[in-house]
This record gives sequence, C-alpha cells and structure tokens, in this order.
Amino acid sequence: MLRDEITMVLKLYDLAGADDERRFSPYCWRIKMALRHKGLDVEEIPWRFVEKERIANSSQESVPVLFDGNQMIADSWEIARYLEVTYPNHSLFGGAIALGETLFIKFWCEQTLHPILMHLLVVDIFEHLHPKDQAYFRKSREQSFGMTLEEFATSSQEAIATFTKALAPLRATLERQPYIGGTQPCFADYIVFGAFQWARAVSPIQLLVPDDPIYTWRDDLLNAFDGYARNALGYPV
Amino acid sequence: MLRDEITMVLKLYDLAGADDERRFSPYCWRIKMALRHKGLDVEEIPWRFVEKERIANSSQESVPVLFDGNQMIADSWEIARYLEVTYPNHSLFGGAIALGETLFIKFWCEQTLHPILMHLLVVDIFEHLHPKDQAYFRKSREQSFGMTLEEFATSSQEAIATFTKALAPLRATLERQPYIGGTQPCFADYIVFGAFQWARAVSPIQLLVPDDPIYTWRDDLLNAFDGYARNALGYPV
Repeated sequence: MLRDEITMVLKLYDLAGADDERRFSPYCWRIKMALRHKGLDVEEIPWRFVEKERIANSSQESVPVLFDGNQMIADSWEIARYLEVTYPNHSLFGGAIALGETLFIKFWCEQTLHPILMHLLVVDIFEHLHPKDQAYFRKSREQSFGMTLEEFATSSQEAIATFTKALAPLRATLERQPYIGGTQPCFADYIVFGAFQWARAVSPIQLLVPDDPIYTWRDDLLNAFDGYARNALGYPV
Repeated sequence: MLRDEITMVLKLYDLAGADDERRFSPYCWRIKMALRHKGLDVEEIPWRFVEKERIANSSQESVPVLFDGNQMIADSWEIARYLEVTYPNHSLFGGAIALGETLFIKFWCEQTLHPILMHLLVVDIFEHLHPKDQAYFRKSREQSFGMTLEEFATSSQEAIATFTKALAPLRATLERQPYIGGTQPCFADYIVFGAFQWARAVSPIQLLVPDDPIYTWRDDLLNAFDGYARNALGYPV
C-alpha cells in the first residue's frame, strides 16, 4: 500500500470503557454515524478521559477529536461542519437554514435529554469505565453535581417516565415522517441517536417500548450502514 | 383595476378579539409573517371562534384558513407548505431536510411553550375576546382543562420562571446565531415568534429581559417588514 493511501484514512479518538470495544460517548456516536453517512473510512481509536495529553493540541479536553491528514478538528459540532465542507457529497445538513435548525436540535438534545440520561446512567457508566478513568470520573462529576454519583443517580422508573415525556416533540415528528430530516436521516437524527447509543453501550435499561415511533426510528438507525451501530458492543434494546 | 388583479389578493381568516385589530392567534401569526417573508399581499379578515360556518368547507374548526383564488387551505403547517410550493421565491424552509427539522421545532413550540403560555394568558385571552366568543371559549377550554379558567391560570412569577427555563435550547442557539434559520429568519423562527405575539396581543406580561438573546431576536422580528408585527395592536414589550 502506498504511503499516501495510508495517511488518507481518517482517525477518530473515541471514548472507550474498560473494554476497548465499549464506545459510549454520545458526542462520538453522532460523528461516527456522520462519517458513515458521508461514506468515509475511519479508524476509531479508543481513548480514555485521563489521556488528555493525546489530544493536547486540540481546543478540547475531551473527544471526539478527528485527524484528517495534518488537520486536527475537535468538538462534535465543529467536526460535523468540517465534514460537510470538506466532503460535500451526502449532505448532513442540506443547506444553511437546516444547519441553523440543527444547532437548535443539538441544544435541545443536550439540555433536555442528556441530563435525564445522566441521572439514569451515571452508575452504569462508572462501572464500565477503564479503571484508570474511575477516580477522575468520580471526582470531576461529583464536583459538578455537588453530590456523590450514587446520590445523583435517579430511580429508573421515575427517570424513564421523565425521559418519555421529554421525547414528546420527537415522537410527534416521527409519527408523521421517518426521520427528523424528513424522508432521510440528517445530522440532527445522529445527534439524538447518539443519546440512545450512550445508554445502550453501558446499561440494560429499556428506554423505549416497541409501539413508540421513536423505537422504530432507533431500529432503522441501528440497522443503517450494514448494522454498524447494532454491531457495536452494548446491551440488547 | 382589472377584476383579475382584485381576485389575485390572498385572503387570510385571522382570529380577532373584541377589537377587530386585536389578532392573537399564534398559528395565524406564523402564517402572517410567512406571507410577508414571501412578499405576498394578503387581506387579513377578522374571524371569531363561533364563526365556524365561515370556514365550514375547510378541514379545520379554526383559523388560519387561507384563500388563494379558488383554493382554500387550512392548518398553519399545510398553509406554509402550500406557500413554499406555490411561491418558491424567498424560501421558508430551504429544502427537504430543513422542512423535516421545522416540524420538530413546531412540535417543540406547541408542546413546550404553548402550554406554559396558556396558563399565563388564559384569563387575559378571555377578557379580550369578542363577547360572542366568551361563552364558547369558557365552555370548550374548561372542558379541556377539567377546571375553570381561573383555576387553570398560574401565578405569573412561577410560570414565567418555567417559561424562561423551557426556552433554554432557543437561548443557546441565539447566543451563537441571530435566527433559528442561521443568518436569516425561516419558518421555524416565525413559529416560535407567533407564541410571543400571542402573549403581546393580550397581556402586559414581560416574558423576556433585555439582556436575553431571545429578546434581541424578538425585537428583530418585531421590526421586520417595516415593523409589521410591532405595529399590530398589543401591549408594549
């Protein structure tokens, strides 16, 4: 193989647990789906929270970080925009207005769904971390939450009901069309799907019932790209 | 003037209060902004809840209903899609993906913001209704709420705090770009703006503080189209 061909492969630093194959970051998942949407090959390199020095030249403290030749791009939103400009085929956004609207959906997902899931998943995440990440995770999250991980964790039934209610606008949308992007998935779909992959990677919790249109939508995305997301290490959903 | 030119003017049935000029429907407001976005002239005809027979041929029990020549289109989402197809200049959506994403934002607005505002505004709405609408409104809403309008009404400070919190994803978006549609307003902006015009038409309540990026965004839309929305009858915001 020519040297040029080797260096053409994209590299993504991707958060992993104790098992190299357990990839649980919702921010990495949205990018991994976006890379496949673009038809790009990527090497997904396991990374742990304490390995800050491996991404020290990026603007971020965490992954995803994408390497494309000599370029290093950090932050999932910046990576998605970089991919859209650099590899314009198979658009992730479909134009400037949709890019703007996707930013709203990103904040909706991160401010509405992620906090509820963090309550539900935090102990499962901790238990699946690489041992070298556990002290860092506990200390940084307990400082942020102002309580222990165990105190922060919510009883499942209560938090699942809150999560189900929070999904109402997504449910109403998917009752009328198969994807947030209409007839085809777009980056907004991958953003929200990333939240579900976060849960699936670390917890046996059942977040959706089969007659929910969101269940069907998640199933479609699990099956997309030859079952890429379904074949990832995780719990059955 | 030629007969053809007269019949070319669009007509919109628009919910009005006791005063013909008090137009308070959030669903009508999104369409009135969309019509101006398209550069279309429209005659806005006051309509009241009890005037079902005037829109009896439509699929809806309420306005907006648009008449375009011999065509009658009901439901704000259907009207917006009709306008986009029939008058493609000055796109409201910018493509199929953005159309899909706008549907999500529509449901977010209607399921998250509207219910909170209904608690805040219901008594003000009732007091501004045309006398012939008041009995209908009280009966239908009290049946839907399962309590009297006065019981349903929430104390302002509590509901404003809930509303402010619910706006978080919009606030984060508008911290980074001037409109939901990015650098220019799109139909999603008009959907959310309609909720604010609903409040402004009937209530002196102050929903936003000046240092909120949403305040600036609302101000821009109040000033758009030669101050069309700001010149409408309502309370100062």
